[in-house]
Amino acid sequence: MTYCIGLLTDRSLVMLADTRTNAGVDAISTFRKLSIWEEPGERVIALMTAGNLAASQTVVNMLNEGIDFGAENEEMGALNGQTLMTTPSMFKAAQLVGAAVREVYRTDGKALEAQDASFDVSMILGGQIRGRRMRLFQIYSAGNFIEATEDTPFLQIGETKYGKPILDRAFSYSIDNAAAVKLAMVSMDSTLRSNMSVGMPLDLMVYNRDSLQVSVNKRIETDDPFFGDLSQGWAQSLRDALSVTPNPPWLDGC
Amino acid sequence: MTYCIGLLTDRSLVMLADTRTNAGVDAISTFRKLSIWEEPGERVIALMTAGNLAASQTVVNMLNEGIDFGAENEEMGALNGQTLMTTPSMFKAAQLVGAAVREVYRTDGKALEAQDASFDVSMILGGQIRGRRMRLFQIYSAGNFIEATEDTPFLQIGETKYGKPILDRAFSYSIDNAAAVKLAMVSMDSTLRSNMSVGMPLDLMVYNRDSLQVSVNKRIETDDPFFGDLSQGWAQSLRDALSVTPNPPWLDGC
Repeated sequence: MTYCIGLLTDRSLVMLADTRTNAGVDAISTFRKLSIWEEPGERVIALMTAGNLAASQTVVNMLNEGIDFGAENEEMGALNGQTLMTTPSMFKAAQLVGAAVREVYRTDGKALEAQDASFDVSMILGGQIRGRRMRLFQIYSAGNFIEATEDTPFLQIGETKYGKPILDRAFSYSIDNAAAVKLAMVSMDSTLRSNMSVGMPLDLMVYNRDSLQVSVNKRIETDDPFFGDLSQGWAQSLRDALSVTPNPPWLDGC
Repeated sequence: MTYCIGLLTDRSLVMLADTRTNAGVDAISTFRKLSIWEEPGERVIALMTAGNLAASQTVVNMLNEGIDFGAENEEMGALNGQTLMTTPSMFKAAQLVGAAVREVYRTDGKALEAQDASFDVSMILGGQIRGRRMRLFQIYSAGNFIEATEDTPFLQIGETKYGKPILDRAFSYSIDNAAAVKLAMVSMDSTLRSNMSVGMPLDLMVYNRDSLQVSVNKRIETDDPFFGDLSQGWAQSLRDALSVTPNPPWLDGC
């Protein structure tokens, strides 16, 4: 399993990914799931992946090297040979990621299904290219995608349920970077506690709108003191909040 | 879907259930999922059900009327004709519920599977019988069951993930009834917000250990002012907790 969160605010993108992969509880490994393509002053694009690791890694390789769709493929002609360092817009970048997903399905999907393994990948793509808007997308296994908006400014992939209530209640498009980073971490902490197949270390990227360079690209290790304090402190904050919440009036003396 | 929570503390049982059932988003109804059998001074037994509604209702009817396993069924002979008003212990009550689940599977399971519907029921059973311990059980589709303990003093059925982090962080065996009720409600509120197939009104029971009578048996309606205030207040408490949590030291100026 995996848990990745992408938060879009009026000033920045915050992307946080765990690193655990597993093929059963006795086959657990650490793989980076957050990839960044950066040319300062020109573009910052970040991709987080969940699902089948072989498929995810192949997609990332294709996005680095370009895909040969064949000259006769008119629909894909414009994406032929493009990489995430050359796509002219974030929309085209999302199309390219979707095309790479479909290409991997075309080559590997049938063989996976023959082994009773499903072709299951999902991705979050965020970033900005000079002269264009900062955008955040979620790409599905079919290669189609949706975009985060001010109404729904966060996207999740992998094990999404444990970490969603805190985002539903406390995240909004207008919060500052520190609050967004802390929220992403609390959401991740909720998931780490409940699903053993999501695990430390974490990879965090913060990108400030129109800066065209990565502001924070940080590996948060298992013994990270800030994350440890946040996890402990948050549990205490919840217990404190519970104790100051008024008691049900009809429970008197029960 | 459904969400039901059973909390076991050193002094009480708190059981909370939603009432929404759905067969698609265009077929939503309200059904009580919390049933109580009470003979003050003698026994209090409560059952919450999730999964296939027809199966759940049939199980509850069997627990009221007794099951005829047939005289030749030695294994089940001791449960023959028993109801939740006559079982001599909570362990026997859990066995009876499990036997009822298996009986419904025996009569309906194959026909359900022929219609591509799965036989899917799960239940939480709690209570106390005079001279015996207060106990809390979870019964699975196969009729087998587990018991809550001091180490794992809460059980959930239905849509369990959204409401689990708050319980993991703030619930313990030693908290008082007001805190336990508020926690169950916050956990339910997290779930209501994220899954449309879990819905108000709610049914709540509080049973105090060794009292052998129900302390609270309350329907919490959609416009319940306490629940509304709790839901609003909790979101604000989380935002407040976030703002007093120290900022990541490495985010300075980002």
